[in-house]
Amino acid sequence: MSMLEMTLAAIPEIDHESAAATQRLLDNKTKPRRSLGRLEDLACKVAAILGNPRPPLPTKAIVVMAGDHGVAQEGVSAYPPEVTWQMLLNFARGGAAINVLARHAGARLIVVDMGVNGPDEPIAKVLSRRIAAGTRNFTQGPAMTDEQAVLALEHGITVAQALASSGVDLIGIGEMGIGNTTAATALLAGFSGCPIRDITGRGTGIDDDALARKVAAIEKALQVNPPAGKPALRVLAALGGFEIAGLAGVVLGAAACRIPILLDGFIASTAALCAARLAPRAAEYVIASHQSVEIGHKVVLEALGCQPLFEFDMRLGEGTGAALAMHMVDAALHVLHEMATFASAEVTDTGR
Amino acid sequence: MSMLEMTLAAIPEIDHESAAATQRLLDNKTKPRRSLGRLEDLACKVAAILGNPRPPLPTKAIVVMAGDHGVAQEGVSAYPPEVTWQMLLNFARGGAAINVLARHAGARLIVVDMGVNGPDEPIAKVLSRRIAAGTRNFTQGPAMTDEQAVLALEHGITVAQALASSGVDLIGIGEMGIGNTTAATALLAGFSGCPIRDITGRGTGIDDDALARKVAAIEKALQVNPPAGKPALRVLAALGGFEIAGLAGVVLGAAACRIPILLDGFIASTAALCAARLAPRAAEYVIASHQSVEIGHKVVLEALGCQPLFEFDMRLGEGTGAALAMHMVDAALHVLHEMATFASAEVTDTGR
Repeated sequence: MSMLEMTLAAIPEIDHESAAATQRLLDNKTKPRRSLGRLEDLACKVAAILGNPRPPLPTKAIVVMAGDHGVAQEGVSAYPPEVTWQMLLNFARGGAAINVLARHAGARLIVVDMGVNGPDEPIAKVLSRRIAAGTRNFTQGPAMTDEQAVLALEHGITVAQALASSGVDLIGIGEMGIGNTTAATALLAGFSGCPIRDITGRGTGIDDDALARKVAAIEKALQVNPPAGKPALRVLAALGGFEIAGLAGVVLGAAACRIPILLDGFIASTAALCAARLAPRAAEYVIASHQSVEIGHKVVLEALGCQPLFEFDMRLGEGTGAALAMHMVDAALHVLHEMATFASAEVTDTGR
Repeated sequence: MSMLEMTLAAIPEIDHESAAATQRLLDNKTKPRRSLGRLEDLACKVAAILGNPRPPLPTKAIVVMAGDHGVAQEGVSAYPPEVTWQMLLNFARGGAAINVLARHAGARLIVVDMGVNGPDEPIAKVLSRRIAAGTRNFTQGPAMTDEQAVLALEHGITVAQALASSGVDLIGIGEMGIGNTTAATALLAGFSGCPIRDITGRGTGIDDDALARKVAAIEKALQVNPPAGKPALRVLAALGGFEIAGLAGVVLGAAACRIPILLDGFIASTAALCAARLAPRAAEYVIASHQSVEIGHKVVLEALGCQPLFEFDMRLGEGTGAALAMHMVDAALHVLHEMATFASAEVTDTGR
């Protein structure tokens, strides 16, 4: 078996018994039953994934993967393609939003060049897994070969495995890549069959003309690379991107190591959907953070069976929503570990 | 002038110029314009309140006020009245949810006994401002005298002033008091004129019989203490509670010191509504944290012109939602201070 096949086969079922045990622990805390709502759900979900009713406070990491997209040539973004490389340097120097928010969340930040069209030189603090200098323009053929897609998935798996072996037990995923809402929308259309116009948003903030070009590019991509009846890997290769496939690999690798994955926005969530199409159990390991402005995001989260924690009108990507949600996971586990019980605090318990 | 009158008169208008300047700073950061959505709004709101386009990272406190309610005799809660005192001890010993979440948020916790029906003995780590051992049963007359309501408001003002003078510049408010959703619902009905049944929820988790008793008690309270045409202070005295009036005072005192106030759930938000009825400008100083399960909460937040940051199905009170929202305020200000600009990072700015 290949590494990818082994990983797909290795994802265990999550442990609902542990979640139930966590809920029982929470029910004995000095508060009305279930009165912390989704914070309690978060603790139970982490317990189910780890198979531990008392999950420790997590060691956190955010993986940001970057890649360029041939379809950016079609004028589908408000930013020129060289911004992907510029932002990779910005991540390396610590100036991007995700640098700030990962630090605030106490999360290690792992930046990976999965296929950026930039100078062929190493960047300090960036992990180079560059498969090519951007994907091919998928209005003219597949974005990636199947082999490239497998390689990207396996790079993601090894990143997750390395984090797991270093003690990380909560991973947020994020991305950067000019043109990648176009790729994610094409993937979502390919997997869901939703009408393209209904799920195509304005990405970084395009005008009506660029939106029309974006819809046209996705329509052409699905004509040139018809997804119907194709295996998920083939759809991912044809319509995806290096960073999207890489993040799908991170999800698969993390799930195989029983690590919860915090999603970010539309593109990261679409990567998780790709992972779930390759291994349905992977969907049980992901936790939605926010609901982004990008209109396709709601459709992706529904397909994954995830309810977002908050809706902040964000549309930045980079893992910024995942970083914010980490505070909520930490809060849930602090409550689980530190609150008194009715018995220990001598508070009357009416069982309500 | 009394302290209350001086405070009401001292609340300045918030500074929209500072908010606009903060937005311009954020617009130069390496991200699409407005792509951090409500996080950007938070930074701007804090700037407007402080009158400073670059607000420092806040020194945070959560004020939890506790009080008992005569109306608890009517069987309107799932918990017996002695739980208010038991929880005060739990706060003092650090075992309640707000102890855990305030610590996680890096906020100082101030617990105030505004009028709990418990032993007449000091509790370490609890500020005693006990006005009486619980309010009177407002189905039989006013809950408080006007003088008691003013005293409670002024205790809240002095708590806010003391925090301000110790350098605190972000205050979350929370409460504890068996029966206090009944009082808050009566206040909301009195101020808004909404039908009582439409805004009466299940509080800590009452069954249908107790809910019917709660509606009946509120109906009777409004018959016995008709709010129409009465000044806000009289309505607050007749239908409120010591902790609710105290928190209204905290809001007024904080606003007079240009300190933003993070609301919590239904009761704390209703306290802010009382403050806004006494001094309309106070509404500009409050920031909603979460939307609680309690059905009246939505009505209160709309009356205050506040949009909640998140909806976690919480209904605990104590300031728990405010504590969670503090992570978001911190995140917004970290972004403002630490992100690179397009110019400093040499990233192409398309102005979108």
